[in-house]
Amino acid sequence: MATMKAVVFRGPGEVAIEERPRPTPGPGEAVVRITTTSICTTDVRIVRGEYRVPRGLVLGHEPVGIIDELGAGLHDDFTVGQRVVVPAITPCGQCYYCLNGSPAQCGGTTGGWRFGHTIDGAWAEYLLVPHAAVNLTPIPDGLSDDEVLLVPHILSAGLAGIEAAGVRIGDAVAVFAQGPTGLCATLGASLRGAGLIVAVDGLPERLLLARRFGATTTVNFHEQDPLVVIRGLTGGRGVDVAVEALGEQRSFETALGAVRAGGTLSSLGVYAGQLVAPYGTLGSGIGDKRILTTLCPGGRERMRRLLALVASRRLDLTPLVTHHFALDDIRDALELFGSRRDGVMKVALHPAVRSHDRLLGESRAAALVDDGA
Amino acid sequence: MATMKAVVFRGPGEVAIEERPRPTPGPGEAVVRITTTSICTTDVRIVRGEYRVPRGLVLGHEPVGIIDELGAGLHDDFTVGQRVVVPAITPCGQCYYCLNGSPAQCGGTTGGWRFGHTIDGAWAEYLLVPHAAVNLTPIPDGLSDDEVLLVPHILSAGLAGIEAAGVRIGDAVAVFAQGPTGLCATLGASLRGAGLIVAVDGLPERLLLARRFGATTTVNFHEQDPLVVIRGLTGGRGVDVAVEALGEQRSFETALGAVRAGGTLSSLGVYAGQLVAPYGTLGSGIGDKRILTTLCPGGRERMRRLLALVASRRLDLTPLVTHHFALDDIRDALELFGSRRDGVMKVALHPAVRSHDRLLGESRAAALVDDGA
Amino acid sequence: MATMKAVVFRGPGEVAIEERPRPTPGPGEAVVRITTTSICTTDVRIVRGEYRVPRGLVLGHEPVGIIDELGAGLHDDFTVGQRVVVPAITPCGQCYYCLNGSPAQCGGTTGGWRFGHTIDGAWAEYLLVPHAAVNLTPIPDGLSDDEVLLVPHILSAGLAGIEAAGVRIGDAVAVFAQGPTGLCATLGASLRGAGLIVAVDGLPERLLLARRFGATTTVNFHEQDPLVVIRGLTGGRGVDVAVEALGEQRSFETALGAVRAGGTLSSLGVYAGQLVAPYGTLGSGIGDKRILTTLCPGGRERMRRLLALVASRRLDLTPLVTHHFALDDIRDALELFGSRRDGVMKVALHPAVRSHDRLLGESRAAALVDDGA
Amino acid sequence: MATMKAVVFRGPGEVAIEERPRPTPGPGEAVVRITTTSICTTDVRIVRGEYRVPRGLVLGHEPVGIIDELGAGLHDDFTVGQRVVVPAITPCGQCYYCLNGSPAQCGGTTGGWRFGHTIDGAWAEYLLVPHAAVNLTPIPDGLSDDEVLLVPHILSAGLAGIEAAGVRIGDAVAVFAQGPTGLCATLGASLRGAGLIVAVDGLPERLLLARRFGATTTVNFHEQDPLVVIRGLTGGRGVDVAVEALGEQRSFETALGAVRAGGTLSSLGVYAGQLVAPYGTLGSGIGDKRILTTLCPGGRERMRRLLALVASRRLDLTPLVTHHFALDDIRDALELFGSRRDGVMKVALHPAVRSHDRLLGESRAAALVDDGA
Repeated sequence: MATMKAVVFRGPGEVAIEERPRPTPGPGEAVVRITTTSICTTDVRIVRGEYRVPRGLVLGHEPVGIIDELGAGLHDDFTVGQRVVVPAITPCGQCYYCLNGSPAQCGGTTGGWRFGHTIDGAWAEYLLVPHAAVNLTPIPDGLSDDEVLLVPHILSAGLAGIEAAGVRIGDAVAVFAQGPTGLCATLGASLRGAGLIVAVDGLPERLLLARRFGATTTVNFHEQDPLVVIRGLTGGRGVDVAVEALGEQRSFETALGAVRAGGTLSSLGVYAGQLVAPYGTLGSGIGDKRILTTLCPGGRERMRRLLALVASRRLDLTPLVTHHFALDDIRDALELFGSRRDGVMKVALHPAVRSHDRLLGESRAAALVDDGA
Repeated sequence: MATMKAVVFRGPGEVAIEERPRPTPGPGEAVVRITTTSICTTDVRIVRGEYRVPRGLVLGHEPVGIIDELGAGLHDDFTVGQRVVVPAITPCGQCYYCLNGSPAQCGGTTGGWRFGHTIDGAWAEYLLVPHAAVNLTPIPDGLSDDEVLLVPHILSAGLAGIEAAGVRIGDAVAVFAQGPTGLCATLGASLRGAGLIVAVDGLPERLLLARRFGATTTVNFHEQDPLVVIRGLTGGRGVDVAVEALGEQRSFETALGAVRAGGTLSSLGVYAGQLVAPYGTLGSGIGDKRILTTLCPGGRERMRRLLALVASRRLDLTPLVTHHFALDDIRDALELFGSRRDGVMKVALHPAVRSHDRLLGESRAAALVDDGA
Repeated sequence: MATMKAVVFRGPGEVAIEERPRPTPGPGEAVVRITTTSICTTDVRIVRGEYRVPRGLVLGHEPVGIIDELGAGLHDDFTVGQRVVVPAITPCGQCYYCLNGSPAQCGGTTGGWRFGHTIDGAWAEYLLVPHAAVNLTPIPDGLSDDEVLLVPHILSAGLAGIEAAGVRIGDAVAVFAQGPTGLCATLGASLRGAGLIVAVDGLPERLLLARRFGATTTVNFHEQDPLVVIRGLTGGRGVDVAVEALGEQRSFETALGAVRAGGTLSSLGVYAGQLVAPYGTLGSGIGDKRILTTLCPGGRERMRRLLALVASRRLDLTPLVTHHFALDDIRDALELFGSRRDGVMKVALHPAVRSHDRLLGESRAAALVDDGA
Repeated sequence: MATMKAVVFRGPGEVAIEERPRPTPGPGEAVVRITTTSICTTDVRIVRGEYRVPRGLVLGHEPVGIIDELGAGLHDDFTVGQRVVVPAITPCGQCYYCLNGSPAQCGGTTGGWRFGHTIDGAWAEYLLVPHAAVNLTPIPDGLSDDEVLLVPHILSAGLAGIEAAGVRIGDAVAVFAQGPTGLCATLGASLRGAGLIVAVDGLPERLLLARRFGATTTVNFHEQDPLVVIRGLTGGRGVDVAVEALGEQRSFETALGAVRAGGTLSSLGVYAGQLVAPYGTLGSGIGDKRILTTLCPGGRERMRRLLALVASRRLDLTPLVTHHFALDDIRDALELFGSRRDGVMKVALHPAVRSHDRLLGESRAAALVDDGA
């Protein structure tokens, strides 16, 4: 039986590289050979044991690769050898949730998030893709793996925080936390025509990126009180839309307080524990405020739309792909990503590349990767 | 100087009937002679000191009456002697909030709620109406005061909880608490074509009314766990929309837990303190749930629309007007309403009627009121 | 090989009852034994040659029946012997159109309408259902065939005209033509809380039904000019929403003229030729008017929602099922339905019933049908 | 009595510069001294007699200027001497239409368009502004007249065509005609995150501007069939949204044909005569297509939002201000603008500048204008 290399969650604090059987596609399924994948903050939480997944699971939900094998019913639409992205969220298109406007909740609460959550994920040489007709998405010619690596999850999630809130032309928007998802929300505010875009973070290099992604004002919360800045810029009212992109109580509470009466808090964080909305931030419950929580939209049409933006050069996310690692070096990669050292934003993981220790990690040498571009 | 009788808030636990100068309208203002007004749960909280308003204020925000005097600029559209309702919420139509889609927040957080909150209210013989062009609403012929008494606030608020949530045809809806506002939310679910309408309360008589207002299932929470019932009716998923119409943490939390992934909690309560959304109820922040808070929509076009429904006999809210009092008997009325005794739902207060003690209170004798109908 | 009886389109003016092979389901497909089906105005147009379909096709798109056989992949969700409705429009849930918010256009323009249009339809003893996971819909216990016969098409289409237009509480709505679809639009206006509902037709018995379905005003266009009535009821402005449910230029033009500036014309008709929108009706192109065209929404969740309304007794469509025929008597049924004689609204066709000539047609004898209820 | 210079419509083909009384503001009104105004295609049609306005009217609806005098009730919010734009469309905020979501139709069909349509307009030294509280909009510091000249009408209208259609991230959009409004629609498609933006026109220089404003593909209809190009780029389906920015039957019909099933035609043109929607373009009336007509949104909050975009340097509309004229040279300006010669896009008219014949027209010498910047 053919085997493959995969990064497996063995329990809190423990991941291991294992030999696993290479998957075989059933009807409607496909197998993708992973050329590039990545690490998400949620993966770090899973590894730490803060967010629960079953032991023995292959982690990772950001797949870029090549179609290796197609199950029955897919040959009319796809070809072995095609370069594809697969969304982090893989709806089926046919269940109660998919047919009632909540495809990311496919099958039940957070159910569309399967890879590295309820089924084996992308930190492996091969990935079994369920509901492949709805999820395999060909990559337009001329785009490298690095250019599309954030499409399956980060870009889709960040933009969704802005889209869910219904940002209108000329709106005032504040985005709390400028990690990769927050930066994509900042980008989204720009992409939807916000008039004022306030980016909040504590790391100067992230605020610089925020400017590049469209922020009209940046606030380092070590130096300034974001609420004071925001009120100063909005006649004391607050923003039309605040995006919370961290997933912590303090940030949630500040963001809710930054929203004007009648405005929207759009929450993208994955929360542990409970959220508290104090009286003052909520206008006594009659301030016409809205709190929205959004899981990343998936499916191939979502992916196609985002890839069209990348292909038209209206987005360039490569500045966020700061480090490259062999998949074998996952522990180093996790350590670097979790520490937020060295200006790390996103790390690219390559199953087909042999371990080069830290050299690869520091090089951004996309050329090493045979399958990209 | 002409004077009038008015019920004034003197401090926690203390209201008094005072002689006050009768108001005179400035440009764009009108004076309405009150024929009927009412008590809201929020008034009870104000009197108890749980929700703050300035001492010396005339309370009450549910005005039905007759135009007594018109300021400059209103004579083309209105006539002295016209019967009108005035909305509880009186937007100006011209400020930042009104022009940005949040008229109930006119001028600032909760700012559209003026009567008995920031300016003198309707518990008086005469009411000064600001922004009268936007707010005076003629009553269609043939409708009595009792038939329209809930239009200025309760009906508008209750329906708004359903409208804000975007209830769709065939949706499953649960309404928590069947006081007047909750009953109007139940009515709203019916009026918007929900397929399943679960009404939750602890008082059997309120659940009976809920049936009459469109509930397809009623749950007495002393007898059954609403979450168990709701999950049983929705394949274990929860409702598309839950309305919280009480304003308490426990009810909020249950309602949020009753919402399916991708569904909406629509909150109508006035909260003191803080709201807590536990992890489990919120799908870890990625369940695509939405929490909406809504203040009652006001303005004359909102009123006109609701009056059209009453006039076409599609709504009959008179079963909710259970007791009548002279305004002089405000203390008795407050005591009865606050106690929820005797099947009280809403009490009508009549400034022009002399005190008849409890007799009037028990009679529902609308005939006593000369101006109604 | 097992055969079945089916009504086949042989060319303009010509339908025939033929013996056809009984279908066998492939993977994801099901076969339904038809207990009741019906005739739609579009079927009449097809038979007349006014709307083109391929010769040799089995017609009919309103299926009520019993699951007879299930293809691979459906046994977890469905059981042979279950009573089901199948929507007139059968989206796949997985194509470009389904994933971009236009499931009725599944696969291409009008592509979701398959039965009796691009594949064999419901005027037969057995129906092959494609994309069965998305479309088979169990009938709630206690509902007869007559009670659900309009769900697959007419009810879904009529309501959709109101839903697409975004009718709001208290809106003024006019529905032009009170055939079955128009009556369901009238019902929809009521179900969504319109304040004024003007039903227009030329047949007094249809206007009587319109009253029963929620119209607040009826206009017989032989006696009154609908525009004069509508302007009189709306302060000269016109309605917020007009529904055109006939599919003819004259009706379209009147309906567009009846819409206020900023309002919506929602078109449900199937048009031949071209539509002309004169200058005056369109506010010179800058009246902020919208013209929407809507094909009936399908899919099992849509059906489930509509069946929930029927099951809760909030809708009763049986008054529209005025005549019953054996499927063998299709020519009589078509002649009656096409002529609009005898107060005919919808005819029920029963493949399992033997021809009783006109007796059955006049009896409404649902009891004859063994499978219903 | 103080007088002023004004350009008056005397009848088809005839405009004259007249001395008129300088306006005096009543309560709620303001007088603005015009520093820069412009000519719109609709003005050309009015002068030609194709679109009717009363004889004797001062034309022009694109005002940039300085507050000269304030009527009662405005001194708290505005100051004499403030630089302002005034929207082409001036809603009151308080009438039926303003309170029912159609402020551009203020008071009745196309009623929000007052300047140069139903009341004296901006081609004059002074402009009387009605409903000034809702419409006067201060210009942010540092912006010149040229930078904001398109805000009152062209930018607002062009973007509105995209906003009304609900363009989503990654949508395919086509804009037919790249005059100033069409170019602003192209810009709007970019500003809202469209993935494919096809700009269609017959003038190469306009297509070059379209590229600069965000078009990803340009089509010169003298060289290529737009429908062939669009189908080629969209898998044969057509665009999600087509914008018609010309106001002619041929363009309308092509645009409707370019829309995919389930898509939207957003019409910005001012039409004379009638519009014809042929069968084929409309999917027989059941293709789920929508036709929207939109008048330019006005009011000060709309203006504020657009000015915020200009101030943040996300938009630069100065390339469209190709020529400058003294208001005295209105005939030359009209002739040039109407002829589409010399690469003219928009001409700036300056009441305070003396006639310099064609020199000024060719210079783009903003420096001549004392009040700008």
